[in-house]
Amino acid sequence: MKFSPALTRLIEALRTLPGVGPKTAQRMAFHLLQEGRPGAHSLAQALGGALAAVRRCRRCRMLTEEELCSLCAAPQRDASLLCVVESPADVVAVEQSGSYRGLYFVLMGHLSPLDGIGPEQLGARELEGLLAEGSVQELILATNPTVEGEATAHFLSELARRRGIRASRIAHGVPMGGELEYVDGGTLAHALAGRQAL
Amino acid sequence: MKFSPALTRLIEALRTLPGVGPKTAQRMAFHLLQEGRPGAHSLAQALGGALAAVRRCRRCRMLTEEELCSLCAAPQRDASLLCVVESPADVVAVEQSGSYRGLYFVLMGHLSPLDGIGPEQLGARELEGLLAEGSVQELILATNPTVEGEATAHFLSELARRRGIRASRIAHGVPMGGELEYVDGGTLAHALAGRQAL
Repeated sequence: MKFSPALTRLIEALRTLPGVGPKTAQRMAFHLLQEGRPGAHSLAQALGGALAAVRRCRRCRMLTEEELCSLCAAPQRDASLLCVVESPADVVAVEQSGSYRGLYFVLMGHLSPLDGIGPEQLGARELEGLLAEGSVQELILATNPTVEGEATAHFLSELARRRGIRASRIAHGVPMGGELEYVDGGTLAHALAGRQAL
Repeated sequence: MKFSPALTRLIEALRTLPGVGPKTAQRMAFHLLQEGRPGAHSLAQALGGALAAVRRCRRCRMLTEEELCSLCAAPQRDASLLCVVESPADVVAVEQSGSYRGLYFVLMGHLSPLDGIGPEQLGARELEGLLAEGSVQELILATNPTVEGEATAHFLSELARRRGIRASRIAHGVPMGGELEYVDGGTLAHALAGRQAL
């Protein structure tokens, strides 16, 4: 069964979305061309608009249309704290926790030499520029608790140490509401090693 | 946490895709604006192109750019068989079974009076036009085995009967490779009632 060329192109293009396989792409394409036509028009417009307008914040590399993102431009944020995360989604997650009032730096990835991603690609130079400004007193490393995320955190802590800036790593342990019984061994080992006096 | 306007619009637009919630839409948007930029450009183009070009086949209502879809235009298909399905995805499924050489008619839905979907919206008039041409000898009703699908099949079988055309319903029963133990009661009841002599 071969679809018409325009339909095939649409299905192929939808497959580049994360988590979308051939069946889902087909279902999406049919939806967009049948009952979803108004939504499809706004999607085409929103996509074109975002591709043209959205770039990275000059300071923190967050996605934004402005020179500075809304967080970097907010005067009430605490400029002495800089939280380093891997992706824009992580900024959203930390913001939603409601427990952080500092600024961010978005790496847009993690160290991955095999994929050609080194300090340069993660904006290490821009980060050093920020640290050189002198207002940052603590660099909070909130990269993911994966091998690559840990390596990235280690690299950045060295970078902070060389400038005499305190570096910290977010705590890893048993998630709130989680049950010990179902927590994996690695997490439990972290939780034990990171135990705190009461 | 508020995203910039263009990013917010893109996330909202992505949420109109079937099966895409707020988190997935956000992940898709970040992907499209970061590493997925080439894919995002082709998606914007493919979507615009498909919206402009894709319409319904004049005969079977399948999605196509042509006046007639590739199946209706194929001279080797058996025009005495007409298989009625609910959606273009069903045409794909039946074609992939490799066991059908007739033509199709795509309802683009099923009877659903509460949603204002009656025979008119399902193309009953176009279907009658096809039957009136005289080449169709059997109308195979392959709507879904749901309450609405069954009602639609019943309605269409009446329509065929009035013209003296044989109507048949695809068999419902235990799926191949399935285990009796895990098949639901309704399916098993169908399988028993539809038993065939060996």
